[in-house]
Amino acid sequence: MSADLPAYQCASCGRSHVPAAGRWRCDCGGLLDLPPRPISWNPRPADHTLWRYQDAIAVPGRAFSLGEGMTPLVRAAADGTDRTLLKVEYASPTGSFKDRGAVMLVALARLLGARRLVADSSGNAGTAVAAYAARAGLAAEIFVPAGTSEKKVQQIRGHGAEVTAVPGSREDTARAAAARVAETAAFYASHVYNPYFYEGTKTYALEIFEQLGQAAPATLVLPAGNGTLVIGAYLGFAGLRSAGLIDRLPRIVAVQAERCAPVARAFAAGRAETVPVEPAPTVAEGIAIGAPARGARMLEIVRATGGTVVTVAEAEVTAARAALARRGFWVEPTGAVAYAAARRLRVPGSPYAEGELVVPLCGSGLKAPG
Amino acid sequence: MSADLPAYQCASCGRSHVPAAGRWRCDCGGLLDLPPRPISWNPRPADHTLWRYQDAIAVPGRAFSLGEGMTPLVRAAADGTDRTLLKVEYASPTGSFKDRGAVMLVALARLLGARRLVADSSGNAGTAVAAYAARAGLAAEIFVPAGTSEKKVQQIRGHGAEVTAVPGSREDTARAAAARVAETAAFYASHVYNPYFYEGTKTYALEIFEQLGQAAPATLVLPAGNGTLVIGAYLGFAGLRSAGLIDRLPRIVAVQAERCAPVARAFAAGRAETVPVEPAPTVAEGIAIGAPARGARMLEIVRATGGTVVTVAEAEVTAARAALARRGFWVEPTGAVAYAAARRLRVPGSPYAEGELVVPLCGSGLKAPG
Repeated sequence: MSADLPAYQCASCGRSHVPAAGRWRCDCGGLLDLPPRPISWNPRPADHTLWRYQDAIAVPGRAFSLGEGMTPLVRAAADGTDRTLLKVEYASPTGSFKDRGAVMLVALARLLGARRLVADSSGNAGTAVAAYAARAGLAAEIFVPAGTSEKKVQQIRGHGAEVTAVPGSREDTARAAAARVAETAAFYASHVYNPYFYEGTKTYALEIFEQLGQAAPATLVLPAGNGTLVIGAYLGFAGLRSAGLIDRLPRIVAVQAERCAPVARAFAAGRAETVPVEPAPTVAEGIAIGAPARGARMLEIVRATGGTVVTVAEAEVTAARAALARRGFWVEPTGAVAYAAARRLRVPGSPYAEGELVVPLCGSGLKAPG
Repeated sequence: MSADLPAYQCASCGRSHVPAAGRWRCDCGGLLDLPPRPISWNPRPADHTLWRYQDAIAVPGRAFSLGEGMTPLVRAAADGTDRTLLKVEYASPTGSFKDRGAVMLVALARLLGARRLVADSSGNAGTAVAAYAARAGLAAEIFVPAGTSEKKVQQIRGHGAEVTAVPGSREDTARAAAARVAETAAFYASHVYNPYFYEGTKTYALEIFEQLGQAAPATLVLPAGNGTLVIGAYLGFAGLRSAGLIDRLPRIVAVQAERCAPVARAFAAGRAETVPVEPAPTVAEGIAIGAPARGARMLEIVRATGGTVVTVAEAEVTAARAALARRGFWVEPTGAVAYAAARRLRVPGSPYAEGELVVPLCGSGLKAPG
């Protein structure tokens, strides 16, 4: 079956690689992408999951669905006066948008004949991979930073996965996972390295396009840690444009926490690459990535769409979370980052004040420590 | 606007009452229902919330949506060998099926000109009412039993509602709420007394009908505490039958915890009414209702559909929750009750072994104490 899967393409040297369980970067060390392609627009009306877009998705993975995708898109204000729209990503099977990508990686692993998955995550991605591995009957080992909350660890174990806690930085956890992959030839279910993850996150764009009556919004505001949603949403809208379904891309505004903002710094300095930073503690822990592997890609996307990169202060995130709750939306602190930025962008006179602006609410407030 | 709303009808004396903010039972003390009516089947294809069934719902409440409804219906086993289907109700805005009814009560309160809501709940209903009241810009006061977890109280307060903790039993909490309603003429957003709540829970049936390709399953297995889902699902399928859209009703199996089983006892004894019991502590706290106000209605429904009432032991619930997690589904303990019963009903030779059987996963595992 893997013959039908698009080949990986190295972003550095251009070399192609047939997807295989042990392959997660190029021999030159480069990142792997999938070749861009137009969206085949043929939604299946009876399917109320992201699999309604199967014709636009490279992986046949419907069987492993837990019901991911087709999340609500609702106006921020119930009185309809507001053109800020909220995409309620936390109304997902594991409570975050990571389900979109996790189901793709698990389906890919099954197609490639893998029996065992390895993933590294401090949070939502690890839970999502564990849940979908359970759904597909695959063994999984999730590497988490030491100090990850006991409640999260219990959930991952509940799904039957092994949990390995790694002392040190977030990067140390990633290194430990990669080492285990090298030792065991397990499938590396990495939301950072495996480009099939974006087959899932690009459905974020396809749903918005459909939910707006086959139109693109003026602006997408997106949280940016490793950039899985920035890249996926871009690929979705770019694929719609190359299929002739839209004329222009939405401007993409990437949002980082002030305390960990390598993409924002590089953007402001006009650089093409990020320079690693040491993350300071932040309430937006889900996007506190000091050295994002795909930082250059995010910069390229923001510039190509005429967008920008903004940072939000701790107090803005906390205030945005409280404001969302007062409107009925319950998110974890990282889930309020994009809304915090949107509130600032929507002031009169801002170039982002006009047109429809879509903000994801990425992770459930039920995930936050009690 | 209230002129367009169906009148309440007393289940005891038959008297009609025009809906009004302070009206939640008949002067004779009887429970209020809405007159049964055929389903007007005209789903709106572009709406991926329960409001796609607006023509079948007595309340025009779309504006207050947080994206409730259209939850996934997936096979319990990913290999497709199994005709047990799981309705993933926890992929809802507040993490439980109670959103279906809460949005109706809040929309009704707005139509009736109420400015303030009162509700009583130990859990999911209170959170849902608080979230939807916030969405609609209404003040809310939620009465909870003393000892309700701090995390739940924080969430309700986060939505801007007042929380009043009441010492004593669950019934003491309900009495305190009813007293506040009498004092203040607030709208009583009661999932037990207000029949408009079932305008929401009946969409559970409409979605299943649509998701099965306009067919009814052989069996619905449903948790039974106050019976909001048993009654709502029945009303949905009964309305489909009276509209000529299905020939027969699914058998309804109501499930109670062994430790709090007034409906099961009455069913086994052939009685038409429940006798109150003192709930023993159970992991299925969400359905530990010793004196369900609508117990007689549940008994009538189960009998009318050729179903039954079963009880599940504590260990069965815990085992069912673990089995669901091993398949990728994360529920709170009460959310595993129906699945626990379904596992027993599906043995060869059982009258419930044949045909499609649908089980709801009512509440998110993220709600369970860590």
